[in-house]
Amino acid sequence: MLNFELQNPVKIIFGKGEISKINTQIPKEAKVLMLYGGGSIKKNGIYNQVTDALNGYNYLEFGGIPANPEYDILLEALKVIKDENITYLLAVGGGSVIDGTKFLASAALYEGEEPWDILANGIRTEVGMPFGTVLTLPATGTEMNSGSVISRRSTGDKRGMGGPGLFPQFSILDPTVIASIPKRQLANGITDAFTHVLEQYMTYPIGADLQDRFAESILNSLIETGPRVIENPKDYTVAANFMWCCTMALNGLIQKGVPNDWAIHAIGHELTALYGIDHARTLAIIAPRHYQYNIETKKEKLAQYGERVWRITEGTLLERAQLAIEKTEAFFQSLDIPTRLSDYTEQYAGTAEKVSETLKERGWVALGERKNVTPEAVKIIVEKSY
Amino acid sequence: MLNFELQNPVKIIFGKGEISKINTQIPKEAKVLMLYGGGSIKKNGIYNQVTDALNGYNYLEFGGIPANPEYDILLEALKVIKDENITYLLAVGGGSVIDGTKFLASAALYEGEEPWDILANGIRTEVGMPFGTVLTLPATGTEMNSGSVISRRSTGDKRGMGGPGLFPQFSILDPTVIASIPKRQLANGITDAFTHVLEQYMTYPIGADLQDRFAESILNSLIETGPRVIENPKDYTVAANFMWCCTMALNGLIQKGVPNDWAIHAIGHELTALYGIDHARTLAIIAPRHYQYNIETKKEKLAQYGERVWRITEGTLLERAQLAIEKTEAFFQSLDIPTRLSDYTEQYAGTAEKVSETLKERGWVALGERKNVTPEAVKIIVEKSY
Repeated sequence: MLNFELQNPVKIIFGKGEISKINTQIPKEAKVLMLYGGGSIKKNGIYNQVTDALNGYNYLEFGGIPANPEYDILLEALKVIKDENITYLLAVGGGSVIDGTKFLASAALYEGEEPWDILANGIRTEVGMPFGTVLTLPATGTEMNSGSVISRRSTGDKRGMGGPGLFPQFSILDPTVIASIPKRQLANGITDAFTHVLEQYMTYPIGADLQDRFAESILNSLIETGPRVIENPKDYTVAANFMWCCTMALNGLIQKGVPNDWAIHAIGHELTALYGIDHARTLAIIAPRHYQYNIETKKEKLAQYGERVWRITEGTLLERAQLAIEKTEAFFQSLDIPTRLSDYTEQYAGTAEKVSETLKERGWVALGERKNVTPEAVKIIVEKSY
Repeated sequence: MLNFELQNPVKIIFGKGEISKINTQIPKEAKVLMLYGGGSIKKNGIYNQVTDALNGYNYLEFGGIPANPEYDILLEALKVIKDENITYLLAVGGGSVIDGTKFLASAALYEGEEPWDILANGIRTEVGMPFGTVLTLPATGTEMNSGSVISRRSTGDKRGMGGPGLFPQFSILDPTVIASIPKRQLANGITDAFTHVLEQYMTYPIGADLQDRFAESILNSLIETGPRVIENPKDYTVAANFMWCCTMALNGLIQKGVPNDWAIHAIGHELTALYGIDHARTLAIIAPRHYQYNIETKKEKLAQYGERVWRITEGTLLERAQLAIEKTEAFFQSLDIPTRLSDYTEQYAGTAEKVSETLKERGWVALGERKNVTPEAVKIIVEKSY
C-alpha cells in the first residue's frame, strides 16, 4: 500500500425530504447566489423546494450553466458575485453546475488578473468562497470532492482544478430527484461513476486489499442497481443506492494508497472538447481500447476484476483479462451507450492525431499509472476507438 | 435506505515514516500535552519518533493511561492540563489512550463542576480542546471517529460519550508500529474490528446495497489479513491492510443509512466492568449468543453474511444463518480468543442477573436495532455465554 493522506470535510445530508435543511446549513447573514443549469429544476419541483428553504435569506439566482461548464458564462456569474457582494454560493444541479460553482468559489477570491490562469497554471485553491450543493444528477462525485473540470469553447480547452478550498461545506443528496432524470442522463451517470472506479482500480496489484474490495463493491452495486434505476427511477431504494454509489466512486476514499490511472478521462475530455460528446460517453468509447492496449501491464487487476465483478473463473490470466474488457464494453452497451467514436460523429478521421497532439501540447508527456501511455500510444488507443 | 448525515473531518496520515509529520499538524505556538499508556512506546521506538517530531514545541508528557481508560487517572491528567495551561493534546497509543484523550479534550473545556457528568448525563461535546493522535494499536477505530468509552473502577461504570468536538484533528497511522504488538493484542484488534462491522451490519435488510458490500469487504479483508498479521506482524502489506480495516470498521461510514445494533458492546462492557476481561474478548463471548438468541429477526442478514463472507450456499435460510454464527465463533477461536465466560472466570455464576440488572439501572430498557433485547433477553444471552 502506498502512503496517503485523506481528509474530506464535506457534510453529506442524504435522504428524501432533506432539501429543506439548506436553511440549517447556510449562515443567516450570508448573501447567497443560487446557481443552476438549464432550468429542469423548475419543472421537477426542486427549484421550489430550494427557494422555499431560502426564504428569509438575501439571495440572487444565476441560471443557465451548461453541460461542460463554460468559462465565458461563468465569467458572467463571477461579475454578479463581485457586483453584488455575494458571500455564499449554492449550486443546485449536476456535475456541471457544481463544477462551475467550484470555479466561481475559487475565482471569487482569486487576486490575479485573469481567472483562467487558475486552470491554465494549475493554481491550487487553498481557500474558496464557501458553498453548498443540492445534487440533482448523480454521476461525477463532485458533490463530495474538491475537484472541478471547466471548459472553454473559444480555445477548445477542458481543464481541471482543485484544492482543499473547493470542498462543498455541505451537499444534500435526495434520491427522489432521480425520478425525473431522463434515461440518457441516468445511463451517463452509471457509466461515469463506473469508470471513475475503474480509473482508481485498474492499475496493478499493490496489496491494498480493502481498497480493492471497496472498489469492487461499488462496481458490483452499480451493475446491480444501474439497469434497475434506468428501468424505474421512481424506486427509492434503487435510486438511493445509485446516488450513494456515484458519490463514493469519487470522494477520494478508494483512490488512497493505490496507483491511479486517469488516462481514460484525459483522452475522453479531448473528445468532448472536439465533438461535444457527453463526458460519460467519451469514457465508454475510450475505456475498452485503453484496457486492450495496456492489457499486458493491467492483466492482473483486469483478471481480478473479471473474477470478483463478472464472475469469470475460467481461462488463463490473459483470457480472463480479455473477457473482463469485453464484459465492461457490453455493460456500457447494455445501458444504450454506444462505445465507438463513429457512433457519435462521421468526421472522426484524424481524431487520433489531433488528440495526441493536443495532449502533447498540454505537456502531458505520458499518461497512466506507469506513465507509459505516450502520445503515440494515445494515437493508437483513439484510432482503435473509431 | 434510511436518511443520514455524514461528516468526518479527521485528517488521516497513513504510511511508514509519517510520525515525523506531527510537526506539520500541531500549531507551533501550542502548549502540548503528550499522553500515552504503559510505556511500551518507549521500547518500540515510537516514543523517540514522537518526541523528535515535537522538538521545538513547548510540551509536557502524561504516561500511564491504562486499558479501559480510568476516570480517576484521567482526572490527574486534567489537573495537568489546567495547571499548565495546555492548549493541544497528543494521544500516542491505542484505543484506551485515544479515548482517554477525547474525554480530556471535552473535560478541559467543560464548565460544569463534575466532569463525570459528561458521561453520566450523556452531554454531547460540541467543541473540545484540539487534539491529534498517533495510533499504536489498531482495533477500535477511535482514531477516526468522535466517540469515546471511559471506565470508572470505583463505581464499576463503563460509559460512552461523543460529539463533533471529539474528532481528532489528525491521526497518524504508521503500520510499522504493528511489528512490535503482542499476538494477544493483535487478536483482540481483529476481533474488535470484526465485531464493530457486525454491529452495524447484522440487523435486517433495508436495501442499502453499497453499505452491505462495504461491510462485507471489511469482514472479508479481516478474515484474509487477520491471521496473517498475527503470524507475521512485520509484513508491511498485511499490517497496512489490517490497520486500515480497523479504521474503516468504525469511522462512521458503514453505519450510515442502515439500522445499527450495538447490543453486543452494551453487554460486553458490563463483562469488562465486572471481571476486567479485555474488551474484544467480551465481544467474542457475547456475539455468538446474541445472534443465536435473535436468529429469527436477523436470519436474512446472517444468511447473506454467510454467503458473501463464509461462502455458505447450501441449506435453508435458517440453516445458513445458523452456520454463519458457528463460523463466526470458530473464527474468533482460530485467533486464540476463547468464546465462553467460563474461560475467563470461575466466578461466573450470577453474572447474567447482574448484567441484566445493571443495564436496567442504566435505563436501557431494551437493546438492539429493534429494541427488543430486553433485560430478560440479556439475562438469557449472558447465561448461554457461560
